[in-house]
Amino acid sequence: MTEIATLGSHCALQVLKGAKDEGYSTLLVCQRKRERLYRRFPFIDEYMFVDKFSEVIRPENVSAMKDRHAVVVPHGTLVSEVGATEVLNGFDIPIFGSRKLLLWESDRELKEKLMTESGLRTPKAFASPEDIDRLAIVKLHGAKGGQGYFLADSPKTFKEGLAKAKKTGTVGANSRLYIQEYVVGVPVYFEFFQSPLSGELEFHSIDRRYETNVDGFGRLPARMQGSLLPSYVVVGNSPLVVRESLLEDVFKMGEGFVDACARLVPPGMIGPFCIEGVYDENMEFVAFEFSARIVAGTNLYTQGSPYTPFLFDRPMSMGRRIAVEIKEADSTDSLKHVTT
Amino acid sequence: MTEIATLGSHCALQVLKGAKDEGYSTLLVCQRKRERLYRRFPFIDEYMFVDKFSEVIRPENVSAMKDRHAVVVPHGTLVSEVGATEVLNGFDIPIFGSRKLLLWESDRELKEKLMTESGLRTPKAFASPEDIDRLAIVKLHGAKGGQGYFLADSPKTFKEGLAKAKKTGTVGANSRLYIQEYVVGVPVYFEFFQSPLSGELEFHSIDRRYETNVDGFGRLPARMQGSLLPSYVVVGNSPLVVRESLLEDVFKMGEGFVDACARLVPPGMIGPFCIEGVYDENMEFVAFEFSARIVAGTNLYTQGSPYTPFLFDRPMSMGRRIAVEIKEADSTDSLKHVTT
Amino acid sequence: MTEIATLGSHCALQVLKGAKDEGYSTLLVCQRKRERLYRRFPFIDEYMFVDKFSEVIRPENVSAMKDRHAVVVPHGTLVSEVGATEVLNGFDIPIFGSRKLLLWESDRELKEKLMTESGLRTPKAFASPEDIDRLAIVKLHGAKGGQGYFLADSPKTFKEGLAKAKKTGTVGANSRLYIQEYVVGVPVYFEFFQSPLSGELEFHSIDRRYETNVDGFGRLPARMQGSLLPSYVVVGNSPLVVRESLLEDVFKMGEGFVDACARLVPPGMIGPFCIEGVYDENMEFVAFEFSARIVAGTNLYTQGSPYTPFLFDRPMSMGRRIAVEIKEADSTDSLKHVTT
Repeated sequence: MTEIATLGSHCALQVLKGAKDEGYSTLLVCQRKRERLYRRFPFIDEYMFVDKFSEVIRPENVSAMKDRHAVVVPHGTLVSEVGATEVLNGFDIPIFGSRKLLLWESDRELKEKLMTESGLRTPKAFASPEDIDRLAIVKLHGAKGGQGYFLADSPKTFKEGLAKAKKTGTVGANSRLYIQEYVVGVPVYFEFFQSPLSGELEFHSIDRRYETNVDGFGRLPARMQGSLLPSYVVVGNSPLVVRESLLEDVFKMGEGFVDACARLVPPGMIGPFCIEGVYDENMEFVAFEFSARIVAGTNLYTQGSPYTPFLFDRPMSMGRRIAVEIKEADSTDSLKHVTT
Repeated sequence: MTEIATLGSHCALQVLKGAKDEGYSTLLVCQRKRERLYRRFPFIDEYMFVDKFSEVIRPENVSAMKDRHAVVVPHGTLVSEVGATEVLNGFDIPIFGSRKLLLWESDRELKEKLMTESGLRTPKAFASPEDIDRLAIVKLHGAKGGQGYFLADSPKTFKEGLAKAKKTGTVGANSRLYIQEYVVGVPVYFEFFQSPLSGELEFHSIDRRYETNVDGFGRLPARMQGSLLPSYVVVGNSPLVVRESLLEDVFKMGEGFVDACARLVPPGMIGPFCIEGVYDENMEFVAFEFSARIVAGTNLYTQGSPYTPFLFDRPMSMGRRIAVEIKEADSTDSLKHVTT
Repeated sequence: MTEIATLGSHCALQVLKGAKDEGYSTLLVCQRKRERLYRRFPFIDEYMFVDKFSEVIRPENVSAMKDRHAVVVPHGTLVSEVGATEVLNGFDIPIFGSRKLLLWESDRELKEKLMTESGLRTPKAFASPEDIDRLAIVKLHGAKGGQGYFLADSPKTFKEGLAKAKKTGTVGANSRLYIQEYVVGVPVYFEFFQSPLSGELEFHSIDRRYETNVDGFGRLPARMQGSLLPSYVVVGNSPLVVRESLLEDVFKMGEGFVDACARLVPPGMIGPFCIEGVYDENMEFVAFEFSARIVAGTNLYTQGSPYTPFLFDRPMSMGRRIAVEIKEADSTDSLKHVTT
């Protein structure tokens, strides 16, 4: 009997709760220090304890998971703490979704390429800090929740921001930076599910991130901001819907992404993904990121989102949707179509 | 057997889902280019295809809807794409709600009058750009989701904003402008349902709009805003509740509006409406708009709002509430009391 | 048979709805002017009318409540309109929760002490306006929803803010002020429930407040803010989730608070409480307040929050959770363990 497993962080609660709701037994890969947290939740059946998440790929752990017929649901913490390359090459256990796409998500050049091939409009990238001639945001490679991101509108303010980020340790000496045009507008994150079994693309939910200190910046009058710089550390998420007239393009973006994945990274997209960007003042959507797996913004919708009742007759979290797909695959002996 | 119909935009999904939940068959007036979008949703039974929504009032379309005993649920897109005058005089099909009120909503002077008669506090209006002596917002007549709105605090900044709006095409040569004092505070949208059958006013939900770029403006430090101007294009909505101590006045505003509608625009308000405004720093509510029909902010609450469990024992979207009223009318042969 | 009672404001609707859902009969202490509001809701069984809430402690009212075996659920309005000292010494009726803690919540020095003992990081307090050497927020003692709060970054801007607050009447001649470092970051409110019967701490939900005009300030470009000052009057609340990796510390804060209450204010925390603060740009949580009773932010979650499905198999508002605890106590004849 299949067991559903995930790492104890990011969206583990909804993933395992959803698995349990669909009748699965559940396994949490849990840091010892967080045991007390997760023991509070009755839907977690078994624990595999580690000191660091990177230990999950050790042969004895993989072997123990295999004995339990575990399918691992990957999320941002697997990418940031274990590493996409290690997951791709050194983690011999079925993963729900495409592990190749996790690598494309983690690598800035591959990411850029996949977004362009998807037909998404993306912000201008600056090859060098010297080229910054407009508002830009400086990002770090990898998935660390916005830690170390900073704003610059000239080579000078780039240097200031970099110095500050290095001082606070959010940017290290060897950090790889990526400089992107800052598109003025409102951030929106679109969450989809691509079902390999039905071939259908489902649109699930929308959120926006809640970031410190930038989402508190506007609460300060201009004349009291002094020399403060905004920071972009993700604290959480808040719910959104968009105008129904935008949904057509939202689906097109999702389909464009699914098509590009199928072409460039076969077998293509499996399960949840997210397209992240900004609507500018002309109502054009500029995408600055994607995630090729479940995102934490879906943690808002453990009882379903404003959109899920259009598709499902029961409360459908993204975690539960994953379990539904695994169950369908299980029942038709086609787990290999939803895992890599 | 009655069929519930609406135009494929704005809040069509919740309207038809709610109709289906109450046992109705559903008809979507659908632009051909959006067929693919709406076909994804299993609760839409029939389609009437058009190239432009304005075609819906053509005799052959009206005739086809009549054959199906359609009741049309009007929303913002009907007002903006067909026109309130055309709906009033040239659309011979039962509409849930008051089509006269759609006209009052669309005409700035009538709107102003109805708000004043409702006892709502409204912002000062400026007859001429030369009169602008404080922060003001410049709006376009009609319901286009904030497109073209701009801010000004003097005749000079009015000219700047107008020039920009004309350049981007959001304001045309013949656009009718309306200049309103800008009340500093927090925007709040209150959604009600007036039942002609029970005579009761129900308070359903609250939202705030998510507008580009103005809801991203505060994420920019003052010194990096440069010469940017805010824009007010509605992208979506996010959920809110207000202090319970405010609800008494919220109901009074709703009742004042319903009373004024009954006096000035008989037979008065039927079904959903929305009062839109700002709480200023003295906690006074200043209303800048109303909508005399369902608003897209209710799209947040397809599973009910934080307030609906106080009134209903099942998930009650505004779309479903409309279907409940139609059903009640149907069962007592009084459809004429809820349609015009 | 026990009856559940509360004052008609703040969160009365969810408290009495939750009580009714658990099978209790309900009593509302209702200002006459609000009768019309509350009569709209079918789950309120009985009314005790007062002109001012402070009348609730009159002997005849207490006596009438005793005849009905009422348990009173306290909230912010009880604290602000009756007074914590009066509730502690002159309100001889069982209250769900700890009335001593209501006093500690209301007294700035006791509050400060309890927060420190809880291990919470708190902002620097300034003994005198002359000491203000960085961004600070000036608060009034008591629970009036942010009315009169203002920002200052020097003795000079303190005087300006104070003058304005006195002029508008939000700060009186005898108001006791409290000056606290203003931590730049994003506000977050964490809502817990401590069960004296199970001994368990439950984490229920998160919100952020919606305050006028400060949450509209960022919608104004810097150059149009002029001499405007922000104000902090609470209008309502909007929903949030936080990163799952933060939950461990969230529980630790809750546990630290529960432990400190048990040590300093026996018998300690009973039922709902809230820890309120800001995540700064280093992702450190700085707590500026607590509430030792249900907070209005839980009004968002009358159908449960994104977190409650992890603990409960039915929609669980905080109001309902209180009723569940009272019911459990009732059934084991241990009401004395959940009331003071």
